[in-house]
Amino acid sequence: MKETEIITEERPKLKNPTVLIGLPGIGHIGRIAVDYMVHQLKAKKFAELYSPYFFPFVIVHDDKIHQLRNEFFYWKNPKGRDLILLIGDSQTYDPKGHYEIAGKIIDFVRGLGAKEIITIGGFSTGRVSEKPKVFGVITDDEQRKELTRHGVDLKVSGQIGTIVGAAGLLVGIGHLRGLKSYTLLGETSGFPIVTDPTSAEAVLEILQKILGIKMDLSKLKEKVEEMHEFIKKISDLQNQAMEQMQRPKKPEDLKYIG
Amino acid sequence: MKETEIITEERPKLKNPTVLIGLPGIGHIGRIAVDYMVHQLKAKKFAELYSPYFFPFVIVHDDKIHQLRNEFFYWKNPKGRDLILLIGDSQTYDPKGHYEIAGKIIDFVRGLGAKEIITIGGFSTGRVSEKPKVFGVITDDEQRKELTRHGVDLKVSGQIGTIVGAAGLLVGIGHLRGLKSYTLLGETSGFPIVTDPTSAEAVLEILQKILGIKMDLSKLKEKVEEMHEFIKKISDLQNQAMEQMQRPKKPEDLKYIG
Amino acid sequence: MKETEIITEERPKLKNPTVLIGLPGIGHIGRIAVDYMVHQLKAKKFAELYSPYFFPFVIVHDDKIHQLRNEFFYWKNPKGRDLILLIGDSQTYDPKGHYEIAGKIIDFVRGLGAKEIITIGGFSTGRVSEKPKVFGVITDDEQRKELTRHGVDLKVSGQIGTIVGAAGLLVGIGHLRGLKSYTLLGETSGFPIVTDPTSAEAVLEILQKILGIKMDLSKLKEKVEEMHEFIKKISDLQNQAMEQMQRPKKPEDLKYIG
Amino acid sequence: MKETEIITEERPKLKNPTVLIGLPGIGHIGRIAVDYMVHQLKAKKFAELYSPYFFPFVIVHDDKIHQLRNEFFYWKNPKGRDLILLIGDSQTYDPKGHYEIAGKIIDFVRGLGAKEIITIGGFSTGRVSEKPKVFGVITDDEQRKELTRHGVDLKVSGQIGTIVGAAGLLVGIGHLRGLKSYTLLGETSGFPIVTDPTSAEAVLEILQKILGIKMDLSKLKEKVEEMHEFIKKISDLQNQAMEQMQRPKKPEDLKYIG
Repeated sequence: MKETEIITEERPKLKNPTVLIGLPGIGHIGRIAVDYMVHQLKAKKFAELYSPYFFPFVIVHDDKIHQLRNEFFYWKNPKGRDLILLIGDSQTYDPKGHYEIAGKIIDFVRGLGAKEIITIGGFSTGRVSEKPKVFGVITDDEQRKELTRHGVDLKVSGQIGTIVGAAGLLVGIGHLRGLKSYTLLGETSGFPIVTDPTSAEAVLEILQKILGIKMDLSKLKEKVEEMHEFIKKISDLQNQAMEQMQRPKKPEDLKYIG
Repeated sequence: MKETEIITEERPKLKNPTVLIGLPGIGHIGRIAVDYMVHQLKAKKFAELYSPYFFPFVIVHDDKIHQLRNEFFYWKNPKGRDLILLIGDSQTYDPKGHYEIAGKIIDFVRGLGAKEIITIGGFSTGRVSEKPKVFGVITDDEQRKELTRHGVDLKVSGQIGTIVGAAGLLVGIGHLRGLKSYTLLGETSGFPIVTDPTSAEAVLEILQKILGIKMDLSKLKEKVEEMHEFIKKISDLQNQAMEQMQRPKKPEDLKYIG
Repeated sequence: MKETEIITEERPKLKNPTVLIGLPGIGHIGRIAVDYMVHQLKAKKFAELYSPYFFPFVIVHDDKIHQLRNEFFYWKNPKGRDLILLIGDSQTYDPKGHYEIAGKIIDFVRGLGAKEIITIGGFSTGRVSEKPKVFGVITDDEQRKELTRHGVDLKVSGQIGTIVGAAGLLVGIGHLRGLKSYTLLGETSGFPIVTDPTSAEAVLEILQKILGIKMDLSKLKEKVEEMHEFIKKISDLQNQAMEQMQRPKKPEDLKYIG
Repeated sequence: MKETEIITEERPKLKNPTVLIGLPGIGHIGRIAVDYMVHQLKAKKFAELYSPYFFPFVIVHDDKIHQLRNEFFYWKNPKGRDLILLIGDSQTYDPKGHYEIAGKIIDFVRGLGAKEIITIGGFSTGRVSEKPKVFGVITDDEQRKELTRHGVDLKVSGQIGTIVGAAGLLVGIGHLRGLKSYTLLGETSGFPIVTDPTSAEAVLEILQKILGIKMDLSKLKEKVEEMHEFIKKISDLQNQAMEQMQRPKKPEDLKYIG
């Protein structure tokens, strides 16, 4: 496996789909929001992404091997534009890998007719908020009006300087390739919690307005609790590996199994 | 040499071969188990794998240069499925390299008609066991019954979170590419011994049942003693290099010969 | 995005153009000198360069996302050779990336008929100079006379040993590919100022003589003040990232948004 | 420049040439020995090798830019096999780069009909020897007799475990590709001298016997003195860069010119 590849089980015919991206990150807000949508909308999995830029290990979960991956789902919207939903449980540790993976995703969804891409992330403020805001960062002046109207706060600038990793690059490269692209960031404390369903709910409420769809959000906390353990395990193992890669090694750190 | 390559001396015709993989790792259990099978079955070498992701040096052994490599052997089974046996004396230091090497191996053995891949490794428990267990991690629910029947313990989960390197990725990518894939891990203390023939023997006993073949295991310890010095030398040199690469350097560490 | 790419909006027809390169660096002398020329000459943007070797983030500026890039402009000279002007706001952190990016730029401008390339940088002396010198480093003996005649000081050798990054490699690779290539370095203190318009002005005065064009330099300081904040922001964020990549990490350093 | 490339000025017709490789290393023994042969034999330069795996800077020498490179020369032997001589002033800092560069060189010289490759390096013993030995490490049993006959000492094994970098890989990959390949290592103290002409002379004496050619070695010390300053400059700058790359960085270490 020399480069990032997307293995397609089915090639759905979609109407100008909007792409929602939920990758791992602070509070796993994107990941749990998009995962919840997949469950609520009964979206269908149709492709998986694998990358040599993911960590070089497999996860042992129960008695089975889980290969690190991202997963694509689609949902045919009876009343409007279809959706492509991307859920990732993997990060890359490699700066160049972020570009390769983001580029592959953009090429793939453009091939499926996508016209729009929304990445979902978290923005950590250092304080707990009962009613978390949803911040937006845009690529085109004409997005300002639509997002503000739906309650998105565009004043995150000044507070942050960069959006690191695929969540930012997908918007940047998406824009370059002619897609309408922006990011929504759920406000979160940034305290070492793994999943922040309150912030994810705030994002989902706004996403419903933007997409013009209606979902039952009452089961979000319950669903997140179910996913929590697996998300935490994958997340912890990758964070440990990231940390281990980035600090000077002593031989006893090398826990090589195989 | 820009990418991993496999140099083939002969292209054997094989009946749905099972692939056994013995790469370097804790206790070198896979490496010595598969090496012993090669000797006992008089398997024939037919290909070698070289990779730019191996360490950038050659080993000086006696008065000769040994280029780091993996070696492929085949054995024609008069009574059942043929075997492909892969023995590696080299690790990669590069996360992306693990993916490239594992991918190349899977593509190669699929081209030879392989239907099944079993990687063999060690699992370090921190205590010496007189009768080491053999743990299995599977990729498909239907493997559970067969492995349990042959005495494989599937309860390693909870104890480990990841299988690092090619031993894990070969199973993950093998599964992705449609091969029946699992790993067997011989229980070993993890104390700084180089080779653990007792654990390798436990794995070989179970492998004989799984593969339906019979080997004389009585010469294993003797054979491992013969191999021990060379395995230790290659292993030590690579571990030193790995360690040196991963820690901040002072100029006097750069022992550049050439 | 697997490799550096140049996205062309327009393919101008140019007469043996000279290429001026202003990339980020000490005092941002090249960047602000070339940027000022673009404004004064009303040069037209016709292409952008993006690279997976840039930092793996996007900049949040006001409420919009800015993807790291370099920008190509052209100016049709009514009285002489046309100009291609390249302004970069991005560095690469990757040694190999410098070669890839420099190679792409050279191939691209050769395809546009370029015969000559001049990179502009800063040379830090550790003292403030009221009348900064402009140093030149050449690739061909016959450049010596022309540059000296225009007031370029060729005696920087002995003071510096290397020119690091694209500014040096563009000249080296340009020369290899048959372009007339040299670099001009504006003397600057190297004190932690972000932009040094005095040194940029000294370079522009000499460039006017070399190129035989005339520009109003009186608005340079004012223009640099306008650009200063954005240049400083992009520069600071990349320097922080560079620093963070190159030192051992603690988990709390990973400010991952997304 | 995405990969190592060899730029050919002339494509000489050669009779089964032997390739002599003198790359940078301990005491620069290979580099100065081959360089001296080039001068004595008046060998003709016909190609240059450039690589994105070299350091990302150009050298400022006098008032000119020197791009890091390796250089190929040929010598038509009136009485026997022709020679290809390779002199390198550049190292790579990248493990994978060593493989790419060595592979390119082997492919190139095979394309020129080469049948044999001899790399020349230094072996540091920690003590000054008035009459330095020349050690050999071979790839084929039949080389043993020839080398011993010419005074090469094959007993370096036990003292060293690896030959790092291109000097070793060229022999390993050369052997893989069917060339007769071995390395000669001149004994040297390893004390921080830059060039060791005494050891280079010992290697040249043996090389003359092996190749059946006769050279005047009396001007070697004088010639090395002439080259010394430039070799030291390039070597020091690369060693500094290597050191800087491999240790945690503080921002003030980044002496970025451009």
